[in-house]
Amino acid sequence: MTRIAVLNPNATESMTDGIAAAAALVARPGTEVIGITAAAGPVVVETNAEEAVAAAAVLAEVDRAEKGNAPDAWVIACFGDTGLAAARERASGPVVGMTEAALLTAALVAARFTIVTMPRRTRAMSERVIRELGLEHRCVVRAVDEPVASIAGGSGHLAPVFIAEGRAALLEDDAEAIVLGCAGLADLAAPLEAELGVPVIEGVAAGVSLAEALLAQGVRTSRAGTWARA
Amino acid sequence: MTRIAVLNPNATESMTDGIAAAAALVARPGTEVIGITAAAGPVVVETNAEEAVAAAAVLAEVDRAEKGNAPDAWVIACFGDTGLAAARERASGPVVGMTEAALLTAALVAARFTIVTMPRRTRAMSERVIRELGLEHRCVVRAVDEPVASIAGGSGHLAPVFIAEGRAALLEDDAEAIVLGCAGLADLAAPLEAELGVPVIEGVAAGVSLAEALLAQGVRTSRAGTWARA
Amino acid sequence: MTRIAVLNPNATESMTDGIAAAAALVARPGTEVIGITAAAGPVVVETNAEEAVAAAAVLAEVDRAEKGNAPDAWVIACFGDTGLAAARERASGPVVGMTEAALLTAALVAARFTIVTMPRRTRAMSERVIRELGLEHRCVVRAVDEPVASIAGGSGHLAPVFIAEGRAALLEDDAEAIVLGCAGLADLAAPLEAELGVPVIEGVAAGVSLAEALLAQGVRTSRAGTWARA
Amino acid sequence: MTRIAVLNPNATESMTDGIAAAAALVARPGTEVIGITAAAGPVVVETNAEEAVAAAAVLAEVDRAEKGNAPDAWVIACFGDTGLAAARERASGPVVGMTEAALLTAALVAARFTIVTMPRRTRAMSERVIRELGLEHRCVVRAVDEPVASIAGGSGHLAPVFIAEGRAALLEDDAEAIVLGCAGLADLAAPLEAELGVPVIEGVAAGVSLAEALLAQGVRTSRAGTWARA
Amino acid sequence: MTRIAVLNPNATESMTDGIAAAAALVARPGTEVIGITAAAGPVVVETNAEEAVAAAAVLAEVDRAEKGNAPDAWVIACFGDTGLAAARERASGPVVGMTEAALLTAALVAARFTIVTMPRRTRAMSERVIRELGLEHRCVVRAVDEPVASIAGGSGHLAPVFIAEGRAALLEDDAEAIVLGCAGLADLAAPLEAELGVPVIEGVAAGVSLAEALLAQGVRTSRAGTWARA
Amino acid sequence: MTRIAVLNPNATESMTDGIAAAAALVARPGTEVIGITAAAGPVVVETNAEEAVAAAAVLAEVDRAEKGNAPDAWVIACFGDTGLAAARERASGPVVGMTEAALLTAALVAARFTIVTMPRRTRAMSERVIRELGLEHRCVVRAVDEPVASIAGGSGHLAPVFIAEGRAALLEDDAEAIVLGCAGLADLAAPLEAELGVPVIEGVAAGVSLAEALLAQGVRTSRAGTWARA
Repeated sequence: MTRIAVLNPNATESMTDGIAAAAALVARPGTEVIGITAAAGPVVVETNAEEAVAAAAVLAEVDRAEKGNAPDAWVIACFGDTGLAAARERASGPVVGMTEAALLTAALVAARFTIVTMPRRTRAMSERVIRELGLEHRCVVRAVDEPVASIAGGSGHLAPVFIAEGRAALLEDDAEAIVLGCAGLADLAAPLEAELGVPVIEGVAAGVSLAEALLAQGVRTSRAGTWARA
Repeated sequence: MTRIAVLNPNATESMTDGIAAAAALVARPGTEVIGITAAAGPVVVETNAEEAVAAAAVLAEVDRAEKGNAPDAWVIACFGDTGLAAARERASGPVVGMTEAALLTAALVAARFTIVTMPRRTRAMSERVIRELGLEHRCVVRAVDEPVASIAGGSGHLAPVFIAEGRAALLEDDAEAIVLGCAGLADLAAPLEAELGVPVIEGVAAGVSLAEALLAQGVRTSRAGTWARA
Repeated sequence: MTRIAVLNPNATESMTDGIAAAAALVARPGTEVIGITAAAGPVVVETNAEEAVAAAAVLAEVDRAEKGNAPDAWVIACFGDTGLAAARERASGPVVGMTEAALLTAALVAARFTIVTMPRRTRAMSERVIRELGLEHRCVVRAVDEPVASIAGGSGHLAPVFIAEGRAALLEDDAEAIVLGCAGLADLAAPLEAELGVPVIEGVAAGVSLAEALLAQGVRTSRAGTWARA
Repeated sequence: MTRIAVLNPNATESMTDGIAAAAALVARPGTEVIGITAAAGPVVVETNAEEAVAAAAVLAEVDRAEKGNAPDAWVIACFGDTGLAAARERASGPVVGMTEAALLTAALVAARFTIVTMPRRTRAMSERVIRELGLEHRCVVRAVDEPVASIAGGSGHLAPVFIAEGRAALLEDDAEAIVLGCAGLADLAAPLEAELGVPVIEGVAAGVSLAEALLAQGVRTSRAGTWARA
Repeated sequence: MTRIAVLNPNATESMTDGIAAAAALVARPGTEVIGITAAAGPVVVETNAEEAVAAAAVLAEVDRAEKGNAPDAWVIACFGDTGLAAARERASGPVVGMTEAALLTAALVAARFTIVTMPRRTRAMSERVIRELGLEHRCVVRAVDEPVASIAGGSGHLAPVFIAEGRAALLEDDAEAIVLGCAGLADLAAPLEAELGVPVIEGVAAGVSLAEALLAQGVRTSRAGTWARA
Repeated sequence: MTRIAVLNPNATESMTDGIAAAAALVARPGTEVIGITAAAGPVVVETNAEEAVAAAAVLAEVDRAEKGNAPDAWVIACFGDTGLAAARERASGPVVGMTEAALLTAALVAARFTIVTMPRRTRAMSERVIRELGLEHRCVVRAVDEPVASIAGGSGHLAPVFIAEGRAALLEDDAEAIVLGCAGLADLAAPLEAELGVPVIEGVAAGVSLAEALLAQGVRTSRAGTWARA
């Protein structure tokens, strides 16, 4: 049995439960998806200060798990891939950020695509990941200005605003796919895809699938250079 | 049962057999890997002219398969991702190039990495894919000057030259992972990894895993814009 | 007598005739322009699949001509420069793509400029050439959504839609010149220039002039590396 | 009296003292430089995990200070600008990272320049800041492989290795200036400058001077968008 | 006493007086700001031809001053940093362009920002500096189409058009700060900041502050390579 | 009769004579090449100060010629394209810089290429043009450290050092063509091409040919935006 931890930097258990349940739907039969909440993190990650605190909380969870029954791989379930570098360095198995996973997945099915993130002020977090990957020429960021707290119990109610922004992305950005720019938005994938007629990528699902892909290939985090063990 | 076609643009059956066998090793239990040789292609793809002919041959194989029992997804098994855009447009399922798959996989485990391709003159094909993905800041290309024909029956004999070039990549490029820059090099992954101590990515394996990842997520090629059906 | 072949990847003779006639108008006295249709190509090149087939057809024409009375230079007369790398590798004389020729010409007379291509779905072909040349900071792409077939007999009837799109380019892109983004649009150069008051670049004419420029300098395709002979 | 806090993310008091003393030498008469150690941080910041912990510790110090007698401006004294975004968001006055300060200073006196950082594994932290500023075309990174702990009591003993690496930068990178890539290296500025004959930039000094420059202009952190208050 | 020359490439004394007076307001107590007009320059710098003449005139002023009582540092007070490279090469002290100074200052307080320059045709001068610094991903250029001559006696009357353009920058560019894109616009900083609620950067002030920062650090123009003495 | 002025920003008549004579060899039968020396310029252009003076001198020559019997087109015969923007703005006919002409020509025959310029300190002038064109991914700069004055009477004696540097470019840069990085180097084209076996591009020849290409197409400098008439 393969165990993949979906680690939510937002310290909101209900959100973690929803994320893990959605992630489990794409996992292959032999994979167990474990939801972990970064207990020492902020309730939601929206500001740069919250991101800093959450990154340390992500690291703490990885460290705790690695002392016991460490999962085979990790998915960071927060847009911006909070704490990814630290987690990658410390975890024994591979670690995939939901943002990078979503972008790499989108790049395989769309020549250009748009992230629709939330709230508006977090756009720089998306842009940071785009730039790390070098996808500036294929990806832009839009936002709907809803707080992360609004999706603690599900995101279906945001379908209208996401559909509206997605439509603008098709028209104005020539987007050929949409990336959902926040954890906890799995409810939106189907209605957006139905309305917009283009692939809609959900990052946690993408993260689980890419983590499985790394495990299948037996590819692990390089310990030369950037993510070397201490 | 999921069926993934590994399509070899080099019209060399023995090479296809080896590629498909290696790919099958990373496929998940429910996946059948089917080797297809682009029959109308050149024996090997090394020159730009051969690449042009091979791209049309790739398209012909996709068109033929799509008229019958089309596979669920495709992997293009030639460095440079010969004919990818055309195949993606025509195939009903997702299509993944081995080059893009290898690069995206490497980006998840290494901050910077080096492709070791062959022969020397094909480096521009690697660079084209790097640039399409925007990974110029993280990936460079090296080559060993061996003809593709030399690996028709396996690539193990090239381990010494690949190890030497890989070592140069670690020292001079600060590579944290190595990407094997040709189909048919699966035999080299284990010995290089053992010698170099960094992840060694084989693109066909990466392609199969990413194709599975797309299928698991239910993500298909966008039909808006670039890869729209005719 | 210098002979420059204008090779039309769209297998439409009437289009070739029009292209060659227009090209002849800019050729210098001692130059004979020869129209060649890529007989094995698709009737028009609009999709990625058509582009793949056309590239192989382009190569076939070059190979055929090189066996006999090869022209001194070639111009590829299709936006996206279909089959350029293969043709450049095989032809004894220099080969110029109409897209690259148009962009390089525009760069000499305008700080920023806009391609107006057709139909809409082909924009990625323009963007590929822009990116190969590195002109992303100076050039953007617009499209009018007309099929290539609509200009088989001339393009003058499209003046209104091209003028409208060109006007938008001046206002919204700050374009200082317009590049006509398809072969067979020579009829539009004069009316657009008259209406818009900025240089309008026609790529086949640009290609012929740049081919002449290479011949005058005695500069031939490098046989080191990327375009080496097999 | 203007008060500028030099905040050391490395929780090593002796290092903070040295940094603050050196910084005070460049401060203008009316400026008081206050050394603050990020008490909850790691002893040194070398790994990604240490950086994550240190960023949260930086934020904690800013939050603590802002509740009392907040300084007029802050300088983050760790290469990589640990916790800069969070600090910038929370501090009432401007916040300058020593890395960005050093790079911007270097850009005013040298067309191209080289960072010499330490230890080797931290190079990615420098590269992240280079890329955020867009200085990839003017700046590269080298490293001497010494631990940060080795400079807890001063850095003068490292002059020979830094001079050797600096000399390599002049010869191989065509560097026109050298940026010292770690806090606590102020002792090296004079000997390197004497030996190499090019400007040697020390980031904490640069940070203090740029913080003073912002204060003199009355320019504060924008509260629109990225660094808005919560 | 430190002496900083503010050198106006526009040969309009009244403009120089206003610029120097405004610059003096941000200078530290021990700094004397000296206004110098490039006497051989054009009355205003708007065209490329005027910029070429002004660059030579800037150099002449530097050469003249260096023969006598040379200032400790220079600020070039014209957007586009007219003649900067030549001045930097010849002046004994550091030379800062107002454009680069404004952009570097803005980068410390805003993740993205917009230059509002004038007149419209000069935008390429701003873009040249943006590109030299590599800030294309963080900065765009807008213009109000007013002649430079209109601000010979002060710029307060342009507040309404600058506020309107600044508002568009906030809405359409997501600008987090505004850079005033011409010398002689100091009157606009306060009203724009009051209306727009984001930092407004005035380049001559920024230039003086950065020149002071260089002097405080004892950092001088590198004489290796690009700006070596003849 | 078409008249193309080759304008030498180096105020050295013997150099102008040599340049014009070499340029005439590539001109088409109906073209007269006129050598013009920028009389008010420095004897050679090597420093940034000399470049500033030369740019104004270039402009003066254009202005003078435009008052009388203006040539149909201009070629700026100094690497770095001294004064190009101003000349382009003022001249009635098209203006081509020898540097941009060489680079655009090279891009048509080589996937990557190297400029060999002189003396060493002028490399930034080449890099500026590379960056304006966006060719950073295809072109690098090397230098031999000879003064421009050394070629006042011809450049043949520099063949050995240029051949050595060119050989290094082939080996270390994977250059597929060489661009001669100074006016007055026409004597070197043949011996370098013979020794190195790759195309060797001479910029003044390229400039004349591209000027002819623009004239043949009837394409003139855009008067919208950047190079508008005053």
